[in-house]
Amino acid sequence: MDPFGDLTRALTAPAGAPAGPTQPDLRREERKGVPEVVLAASKTGPHLAGAVRAFLDGRDRAIVSRLSPDQAALLHESFLDAVIEEYGHGRTMVLRRAAWTPPLPGGRVGVITAGTSDVPVAEEAAVVAREMGCQVDSAYDVGVAGIHRLFGPLREMVERSVDVMIVAAGMDGALPSVVAGLVDVPVIGLPTSVGYGMGGAGVAALMTMLQSCAPGLVVVNIDNGVGAGATAGLLARRAAEARGELPPRRPG
Amino acid sequence: MDPFGDLTRALTAPAGAPAGPTQPDLRREERKGVPEVVLAASKTGPHLAGAVRAFLDGRDRAIVSRLSPDQAALLHESFLDAVIEEYGHGRTMVLRRAAWTPPLPGGRVGVITAGTSDVPVAEEAAVVAREMGCQVDSAYDVGVAGIHRLFGPLREMVERSVDVMIVAAGMDGALPSVVAGLVDVPVIGLPTSVGYGMGGAGVAALMTMLQSCAPGLVVVNIDNGVGAGATAGLLARRAAEARGELPPRRPG
Amino acid sequence: MDPFGDLTRALTAPAGAPAGPTQPDLRREERKGVPEVVLAASKTGPHLAGAVRAFLDGRDRAIVSRLSPDQAALLHESFLDAVIEEYGHGRTMVLRRAAWTPPLPGGRVGVITAGTSDVPVAEEAAVVAREMGCQVDSAYDVGVAGIHRLFGPLREMVERSVDVMIVAAGMDGALPSVVAGLVDVPVIGLPTSVGYGMGGAGVAALMTMLQSCAPGLVVVNIDNGVGAGATAGLLARRAAEARGELPPRRPG
Amino acid sequence: MDPFGDLTRALTAPAGAPAGPTQPDLRREERKGVPEVVLAASKTGPHLAGAVRAFLDGRDRAIVSRLSPDQAALLHESFLDAVIEEYGHGRTMVLRRAAWTPPLPGGRVGVITAGTSDVPVAEEAAVVAREMGCQVDSAYDVGVAGIHRLFGPLREMVERSVDVMIVAAGMDGALPSVVAGLVDVPVIGLPTSVGYGMGGAGVAALMTMLQSCAPGLVVVNIDNGVGAGATAGLLARRAAEARGELPPRRPG
Amino acid sequence: MDPFGDLTRALTAPAGAPAGPTQPDLRREERKGVPEVVLAASKTGPHLAGAVRAFLDGRDRAIVSRLSPDQAALLHESFLDAVIEEYGHGRTMVLRRAAWTPPLPGGRVGVITAGTSDVPVAEEAAVVAREMGCQVDSAYDVGVAGIHRLFGPLREMVERSVDVMIVAAGMDGALPSVVAGLVDVPVIGLPTSVGYGMGGAGVAALMTMLQSCAPGLVVVNIDNGVGAGATAGLLARRAAEARGELPPRRPG
Amino acid sequence: MDPFGDLTRALTAPAGAPAGPTQPDLRREERKGVPEVVLAASKTGPHLAGAVRAFLDGRDRAIVSRLSPDQAALLHESFLDAVIEEYGHGRTMVLRRAAWTPPLPGGRVGVITAGTSDVPVAEEAAVVAREMGCQVDSAYDVGVAGIHRLFGPLREMVERSVDVMIVAAGMDGALPSVVAGLVDVPVIGLPTSVGYGMGGAGVAALMTMLQSCAPGLVVVNIDNGVGAGATAGLLARRAAEARGELPPRRPG
Amino acid sequence: MDPFGDLTRALTAPAGAPAGPTQPDLRREERKGVPEVVLAASKTGPHLAGAVRAFLDGRDRAIVSRLSPDQAALLHESFLDAVIEEYGHGRTMVLRRAAWTPPLPGGRVGVITAGTSDVPVAEEAAVVAREMGCQVDSAYDVGVAGIHRLFGPLREMVERSVDVMIVAAGMDGALPSVVAGLVDVPVIGLPTSVGYGMGGAGVAALMTMLQSCAPGLVVVNIDNGVGAGATAGLLARRAAEARGELPPRRPG
Amino acid sequence: MDPFGDLTRALTAPAGAPAGPTQPDLRREERKGVPEVVLAASKTGPHLAGAVRAFLDGRDRAIVSRLSPDQAALLHESFLDAVIEEYGHGRTMVLRRAAWTPPLPGGRVGVITAGTSDVPVAEEAAVVAREMGCQVDSAYDVGVAGIHRLFGPLREMVERSVDVMIVAAGMDGALPSVVAGLVDVPVIGLPTSVGYGMGGAGVAALMTMLQSCAPGLVVVNIDNGVGAGATAGLLARRAAEARGELPPRRPG
Repeated sequence: MDPFGDLTRALTAPAGAPAGPTQPDLRREERKGVPEVVLAASKTGPHLAGAVRAFLDGRDRAIVSRLSPDQAALLHESFLDAVIEEYGHGRTMVLRRAAWTPPLPGGRVGVITAGTSDVPVAEEAAVVAREMGCQVDSAYDVGVAGIHRLFGPLREMVERSVDVMIVAAGMDGALPSVVAGLVDVPVIGLPTSVGYGMGGAGVAALMTMLQSCAPGLVVVNIDNGVGAGATAGLLARRAAEARGELPPRRPG
Repeated sequence: MDPFGDLTRALTAPAGAPAGPTQPDLRREERKGVPEVVLAASKTGPHLAGAVRAFLDGRDRAIVSRLSPDQAALLHESFLDAVIEEYGHGRTMVLRRAAWTPPLPGGRVGVITAGTSDVPVAEEAAVVAREMGCQVDSAYDVGVAGIHRLFGPLREMVERSVDVMIVAAGMDGALPSVVAGLVDVPVIGLPTSVGYGMGGAGVAALMTMLQSCAPGLVVVNIDNGVGAGATAGLLARRAAEARGELPPRRPG
Repeated sequence: MDPFGDLTRALTAPAGAPAGPTQPDLRREERKGVPEVVLAASKTGPHLAGAVRAFLDGRDRAIVSRLSPDQAALLHESFLDAVIEEYGHGRTMVLRRAAWTPPLPGGRVGVITAGTSDVPVAEEAAVVAREMGCQVDSAYDVGVAGIHRLFGPLREMVERSVDVMIVAAGMDGALPSVVAGLVDVPVIGLPTSVGYGMGGAGVAALMTMLQSCAPGLVVVNIDNGVGAGATAGLLARRAAEARGELPPRRPG
Repeated sequence: MDPFGDLTRALTAPAGAPAGPTQPDLRREERKGVPEVVLAASKTGPHLAGAVRAFLDGRDRAIVSRLSPDQAALLHESFLDAVIEEYGHGRTMVLRRAAWTPPLPGGRVGVITAGTSDVPVAEEAAVVAREMGCQVDSAYDVGVAGIHRLFGPLREMVERSVDVMIVAAGMDGALPSVVAGLVDVPVIGLPTSVGYGMGGAGVAALMTMLQSCAPGLVVVNIDNGVGAGATAGLLARRAAEARGELPPRRPG
Repeated sequence: MDPFGDLTRALTAPAGAPAGPTQPDLRREERKGVPEVVLAASKTGPHLAGAVRAFLDGRDRAIVSRLSPDQAALLHESFLDAVIEEYGHGRTMVLRRAAWTPPLPGGRVGVITAGTSDVPVAEEAAVVAREMGCQVDSAYDVGVAGIHRLFGPLREMVERSVDVMIVAAGMDGALPSVVAGLVDVPVIGLPTSVGYGMGGAGVAALMTMLQSCAPGLVVVNIDNGVGAGATAGLLARRAAEARGELPPRRPG
Repeated sequence: MDPFGDLTRALTAPAGAPAGPTQPDLRREERKGVPEVVLAASKTGPHLAGAVRAFLDGRDRAIVSRLSPDQAALLHESFLDAVIEEYGHGRTMVLRRAAWTPPLPGGRVGVITAGTSDVPVAEEAAVVAREMGCQVDSAYDVGVAGIHRLFGPLREMVERSVDVMIVAAGMDGALPSVVAGLVDVPVIGLPTSVGYGMGGAGVAALMTMLQSCAPGLVVVNIDNGVGAGATAGLLARRAAEARGELPPRRPG
Repeated sequence: MDPFGDLTRALTAPAGAPAGPTQPDLRREERKGVPEVVLAASKTGPHLAGAVRAFLDGRDRAIVSRLSPDQAALLHESFLDAVIEEYGHGRTMVLRRAAWTPPLPGGRVGVITAGTSDVPVAEEAAVVAREMGCQVDSAYDVGVAGIHRLFGPLREMVERSVDVMIVAAGMDGALPSVVAGLVDVPVIGLPTSVGYGMGGAGVAALMTMLQSCAPGLVVVNIDNGVGAGATAGLLARRAAEARGELPPRRPG
Repeated sequence: MDPFGDLTRALTAPAGAPAGPTQPDLRREERKGVPEVVLAASKTGPHLAGAVRAFLDGRDRAIVSRLSPDQAALLHESFLDAVIEEYGHGRTMVLRRAAWTPPLPGGRVGVITAGTSDVPVAEEAAVVAREMGCQVDSAYDVGVAGIHRLFGPLREMVERSVDVMIVAAGMDGALPSVVAGLVDVPVIGLPTSVGYGMGGAGVAALMTMLQSCAPGLVVVNIDNGVGAGATAGLLARRAAEARGELPPRRPG
C-alpha cells in the first residue's frame, strides 16, 4: 500500500466539490493498519447510530468506546442484526455482522493494571489490539501498594514473549516505571483518570510516567486506551510480520 | 515544658515596645524539641553570618542549609573558632563551639534515596535528625528503575527497627509508594526538585506521593529536607521516650 | 511478621495462573497494621456490595468511605446481618458482624477541624484511627478566623498527651501551621476540598500546609482522611507499643 | 479636583499630535492622591536616571523601587544634589531636593511581617504610605510558626488606633488571616515571593489570603508593596480627612 | 470592645470541655463589626435551616448566600414567622424577625458591574454593606466593551462622595483597572466566575485585577461578594465614624 | 459614523439617573459594524426570552448562541411570529421578523474544521459572518490525522479568493498551523473545547495555535465562534468596501 | 503565485537526497507575502551570522529580532557592508544591502502600547509591517491607569483610516479590550511579558485579551511582535490591493 | 538473560552491608538492552568525570548528554586516552576506548525535526539508537509552517522501511501528528523545550502530541531525547531480531 497515494491524487486532481459535513475514514485500516474507533462520548443518539451503521455497512464491524449506559442500550436496540460484545463494564463495545472476516492472528500484547478502577480503560486498549489480530494477556490489580502481587504475572508475560506491554495506572501512576525497570520489551504507560485532589484525574499518573528514568517507557494521554492499544497493536503486528507469522503489509 | 506559657505571658502582659526588625527564635528547641535551621538561600553575607553567630553564641551550635559555595567559604573564614562539618556536597553545614553538649542519644531514622541527585536534600534531613540525637541509617541510589537494588537495604532497616523512614525521590517520585507498601513503619515522602519538562522540578514527584494508595505515607514540600528530618526526629524521639531510652520532654 | 515473606514467595514460586480481575488485599492489616478501606466513590452498586461482603466475610468488619446517600441506603438493605455505624454525615460507614474482635486499645490521636465543613473528612480519619484501636479526642470548628476558640481545646489535648494530631482545614488552610507552631507532637495536615475561586477545592489549603515553616508538620492529599487516619494510627500504635501498653507487632 | 476634567478635555479637543514615546504621569499625585513610583526592575541605567530626573525636576522627589545594587549605586552617583534615603536593604529609595515640601501629616498605618524575608517588600509599602503623609507603625518577624510573638505588637497597634493594617507574608501566608480574625480595622494582605517548591514564589501565600474566611481582608498581588502602601495611604488619609485632621481633597 | 478579651480569657481559663461539633460565631458582629453570613452552598437542608434559625434566634436576622432555588424554597417554608427579602436572582436572602433593630445609618458604598451576569455576586456585596448600615449606590452593565456607558454613573458616584467602590467584573475583568485609574477613592475589585475557555471561571478577571497598575485597587477572591461587601462596609463605617455621623465602635 | 460621539456626549452631559440593571447595546451594530449575539448559556428562561424580544423589537432579528435544547424549545414556543433558523446542532439560532432587511452582500469567508465535533462552534462563527453580509464557504472534518482530505477544499477556497479563513480545531489543534503555512490570506485559529486528559477542553489546541510559527495566524479564545466570526466579518467587509463592492461605513 | 505548486512538485518528484540540516525558507516572502524574521534568541554567534548572511545574500535584507546586546555588537562587526537600523532598544535590527528594493507602499497600521515597557515588542511588530510596505502610526504609554491619555491618539488613528490596529499591553492587559470597544477596525491584541506575581510574564494580559467581549479583537502569543506585525501587514496589504493602491499578489 | 534473576538473588540473600552512596548500573545494558547515559546537567566536574570513567573502565564506552561547553572541555582534557565524538552542537558526547566492541548492526530508525532548534535533542536520540546498533536516517527542519519540505524526506524513509520514527518538535509541536497520520510505522513524539509565552518551553508541543488523534503516536517527556532513542532502539532491535538479522536476546 502507498500511504502517499491519496495525497498525490488529492493534490493533482482538479478542484471539485467542497468537502461535505463529515468525512468518515473507512479506509484508515488499510492506510494505517489500525481500525478507526467511534468515540461515543460527545455524540447524540442519532449521530452515534449513524456512525456505527457506516462502519457496520462498510467493514462488517464497528468498535465503539466511551459509551454511557443509555448509549449502550440504544445500540442494542438499533442493531439487532449484529452480534454485540461488551468490555470494561460496558465502556467499550464491538458490533459484528456475520460477513465479518477476522484478521490473521499474530503478535502478542501484555496488559497490566495497577488497580481495579483502571480496568475499563485497559480493556479499551485490549479490544483494539485484539481486533487488530493480536493475542492479549492481562493481569489486573497488581499495583505498587502491594507489589508482591506483581511479580508472578509479570514473569509469566515475559516467559510468554509478549512483544509489548501496556501498563495502566491512575492515582500515583508508579507501576509503569517499576515494570519498565524490570523487563526488556517496550512498555506503553497508560495513565487513567483515577485519583482526586492535587494531581488527581490522572495528572499525577501522567507526569510520573513522563518523568520515569526507566528506558523503554513511552506514554499516551490520560484514558487514551484506544491510542495505547493501537500503538501496541502496530508494534506487535510488525514483530509478527518480521517473524514470518504474518505476510508483510507493504510488499518490499 | 508548657507550650502555652509564652502565649499566656504575651497576652496578659502590658503593651510594651513594638517588635524589632528580627525575632530570632533561639528557644524553639525547648518549645518544640526541634532545632531551628538557618536557611542561607536568600541571605546576604552579613545577614547569614549574623544569624549563624546568634545561634553559636546562644546555643553553641548552628545548623545552616541551602548554602552556595561562596556562602560556605564565607562561613569558613568567619568562624575560625568553630568546628565545621559539611554534608550533601556542601549544601548543609553544622558549626559547633567546644561548649556544645550533644543531646542524649535515642531514636532511629532510616533515610533512603532514589537517585544520587537526591542525596543533598536527604543529607539535610539526616543532619537535622542526627542533631536531635537520633541514629540515622541510610541507603542511596536504590530507585525503581533498578528495583532489585532496593530490597537488601530495606530489609536491613526493618530488621534494625528504625522508627520512621524518610524516602527522598525526584523525577518520577515512585519510590516512597513502593517502600510504604512494603514496610509497617511510617514513611515520610521527601520529593526533590530533580527532573525536567512536564512535572519537573519535583512537581511530579510530589504529586505521585500525594496520590499514593500506600497507607502510612505522609509528605513534605519539594526539597524540604529540614521539615522531613524534624518530623522524623520528633517521631523517633517520642518512640525512644516511650521505650524508656530517653526521659520524657514534658513531665506528666 | 515478615513483610518480605510474601515477596520472596511470589518470586521464588513457579509461574502460575495469571492474576484474576481483582486482587482483594484482605491481609493488608497483618502486613501493614492498617485496615483496608473500601472507597465507594466510583463503584457501581454490585461492585460496592461485593467488596463489602468480601471484608465482612474475611475479617468480620468492613470500613467504607466516600459513600453517596444512595450507596449508604443500598448497604443498609444489603447487610441486615451486620451492625452498621455512620460517621461524617454518612460519608463513612463501619459494618460489623458479631464475631468481630476489637483490637487491643492503645495510642491516642487528636483530631481538630477549622470549620464545620471539614468534619466529614476529619471523621473519616478518626474512624480509621479508632478501628486500629486508638482513642480519638476531637475539637471541631476552631479555625483562625476566630482563633480564640482554639486555645482551650488545644491545651486540653496536650495535657491528655495525644501522640499525634490531625488538623483538617479547607479554605485558607492556615490552622495546621498555627497548631504545629504551638505543640510538640507531630501534626498531620489534612487539607479538605472546601473553598472556591482561586485556590479552591483544597488547593490553597494544601499549598499553605506544604509551605509551613512550623517543624513537625507533614501532609496528606486533599480529602485523604483515610491516609491521615492510617498514619496517625501507625504512629500512635507504635508509641503505645513502646510504652508497653501493647505487645510489639514484630517480635524482636 | 475633578478627576473627569482631563478626560473631557482630551475628548473634546481637536485631534493633535500623536502621543510621544513616553507619557510621564507627573500629575497623578493630584488626580489620585498617590505618588507615582518608578519601578527600576526592567529599566536600563539611562532610562532609570531619566525617569528619576523627571520626577525630581517636576516634584522635587522621586520614589524608586525594585532597585538592584548596581542601579542604586548609579543613582547615588547621578544625583549628588539630592538627599537619598534607602529602605528594605536598598530595594526602595527616596530622593529629595531641598525644595521638597512634605505633605500635611495625617492617617496611621500598621505594617506587620511574618518573617524577616518579607521586610523589603513591607518597607516598600511603608515608604509609599509615609510619603503620602501617614504615620507608620511596624512589627516584623511575628509569624504563625511562633504565634506568641504576635499578640503584643498587635495589641499595641490596635490601642494606637491605626486606620488600616498591611500584613506581609510569604511561605504559608497564614498571618493575614489570623490578624484579620482578631482586629476590626481593614487588613491588606501583602503576599511576598518567599517560598519554594509547590506553592512557592508567593503563590501559596496569595491563595491562602484569597481563601481567608476572615472578613475585612483584601489582597494585592505578590510583592506589590507599592499597591498595598498606596491603598493603605488612601484609606488612612480619607479617615484623617473625615476626622478633620486634614483638609478634604475634593471640596464639597 | 476589646478584641483581645476573648483570647486572654481562653488562654488563662482552666482546661474545660473540648469544643463541640459546631461553634457558631454569633458574636462576630460585635467583635469585628461585620455580620456573619451563612453560606448555603454545601449545606444539607437541615443544616441550613439550623444555621438560619440560630442567627434568627440569636440576632433576629440571618443573611444567607449562595442559595439554590430548592434551598430558597425550603427557607420560605421553614420560616413563616420571618420577613424574607431576596437579592441577586435569589442567590442571597435576608430573613428578619420583628424584633430586629437596624444599625445606625452611616457610610456610602458604590457598587458597579461590568455585565449583567456579574449582578448576583455584586448584590451579595451590596446586601452585606447595607446590613452593616451603609447606603449603597449601584450601576450595572457598564463594562469596557461599551465604555461610553460608564462615565455618567461613575461621575455621579464621585459627586455623591461614596467612601469606597466595589467593581464586579468577570470575563476580561478590565473594568476595575479603568475605574481605579479615574477615581480617588479606594476600589475593591470583585472578580466573578463569568467566562469560559482559557482564563475562564474568573481566573483572567482576578489576574488582571492583581496586575493592575492603578493605585488604590485591592481585590478579593472570585465570587467573594461577602468579603467585598464586608470590607467596603468596614471602610465606609470607619469614615462615617470619623465624620462624626456614627459613634465610635471602640471608645478611645 | 463617529465612534467617539457617544463617548463625548456621555462625558459632557450633566450627571443624570444612575444606570439601570441592564444596558442592552442595541446600537452596537452601527457603532462597530458587528451585530450583538445573545449568549444563552447562563440565562434563565425569562431573561433569555426578554433579551431576544429586545433585539427582535429593536432590530427585527436576534442571534442567539450556546443554547440548550430546553432553551431552544422555549424560544420556538415564545416567538411564533418569527422565522427561526437553527445551526450547529441547535447551538446557534437566528430569529427574524418579516420587516428584517438583509445587509448588502459583500466579503467572503472560508470556514474549515478539523473534525465533526468542531462543527457547532464553526457554525456559530459562520452565522455571525453571514449575518454581517458575507458569503461563507466551508469544509468540515479535514484534520491532520488524514491530511489528504484537506488539500482539495483548501485549494478551492484559495481559488475563490476568500478574504479570510477561520480554522476550527480541538484535540491537537494542529490544523490552523498547517493551513496558515500554505495560504496567504489571514487565518483566524478557533480552538474548540474538544479533547480530554492533559491539554483537554481546548487547552492544547489554543496553546499550539499560539505557538505556531506560521505568519498570519491569530487566535480567539476556546469556543469563541462569535468572536472569530465577527473579526472575520469585519475583515471581509472592509475588503469588500475597498473593492468597491460595498459603500464605505465611514464616509471619508 | 500558486501556493500549492511547491507541494505538488515535492510529492510528484522522485525520492531524492534526504533533507539537510537546515532548510532556510528564503522564498517565504513570495509564497506568503511576509518576510521571514531571524530569531536571535537561542542562536550562537556563528549560527546567527550565518542566517543573517543567507538573507542578505538571497534577499539583500535581513530582519533580526530578540537580539542581546552582544549579538547586536557581533552583527555590527560582521556586516560592515550593510546599512543597519535598530529598533525597540536594540531588540530588533534591519540590515540592508545597497541592492535592496523597497516594496511598493500601501496599507496603514496603527500601533499602540499601554506602557513604555511594551515598546520593544511593539516596535518589533511595527518593523515587520513597515518592511512589508505599510505605513505605521504609533502612540505609546497610553494605558488604562490614565485612560485620559488614550482618546486623542486613538481618535487621530481612526481619522487617518488605519486598516488595523495592534495594541500591545503587559501587566493587566486591559487596553486592547477598551480600544476594540471603541473602534471599528480589527484589533490585534499583543500581550507582552511585563508583569510579576500571579498572572505575571504576560499571562494575565493574554488571558484578559482572550476573555474580551469586544468584537473584532484577536490575539497572538505573549511577546509575539513578529506575528502581530505580519498579520497586520497581511490585512493592510490586502486592503490596499482592494483599494487599487497595490497590484494584486495573485492575478485573478 | 533472566530479568528476575537479580531480584530473586537480592531477596533471598542474607541482609548485608547497606547500599553505598552511589550504585552505578553498569549492567543495565545486559538487563534492558539499553546503554545507560550519563546526564551531565546537574553534576559537578569531579562527579561527571568519575561517572564517565566508571563507564569507560567498565564498558569501554561512555555516553554523556546535556553537557555545558565547560563540561565538554573538561572531558576533552580528562580523557586523552579516549576517542571523543560530539553531537547536537556539543550537547551529547560519546567517548570510546580502543577495546570497545560495537554491537551487531540491526534495526532502522528515522529521526525528523520540525525546526533547526530541535536538532540537539533529536541528535541525542539518534546517538542512543546508533549506539544500540541501529541505522539512523534523519531529516531536519521540515515542520508544518512549510509543509512542502516534509513529503520528500518522509517518502524516502518509508521506502527505506524504517522500523520506527522519532519526530522532534517544539513551538506548536504539530509535526508528529501530521507524520503519524501519513505513515504506518510507530511514531515517537519528542517535544522540545523550544517556544515562549503561553505553552512555551515545550508545554504546548507535549500537549498537542498527547491530544493527537493519529493512531500509533506515543510520546516521551520534553527534551527526553535519551528516552525516545532508547525506546526506538528497543523497537528496532526487536524487529531486527524477528527478521533474523540479529540473534535473540533471550533464547527461547
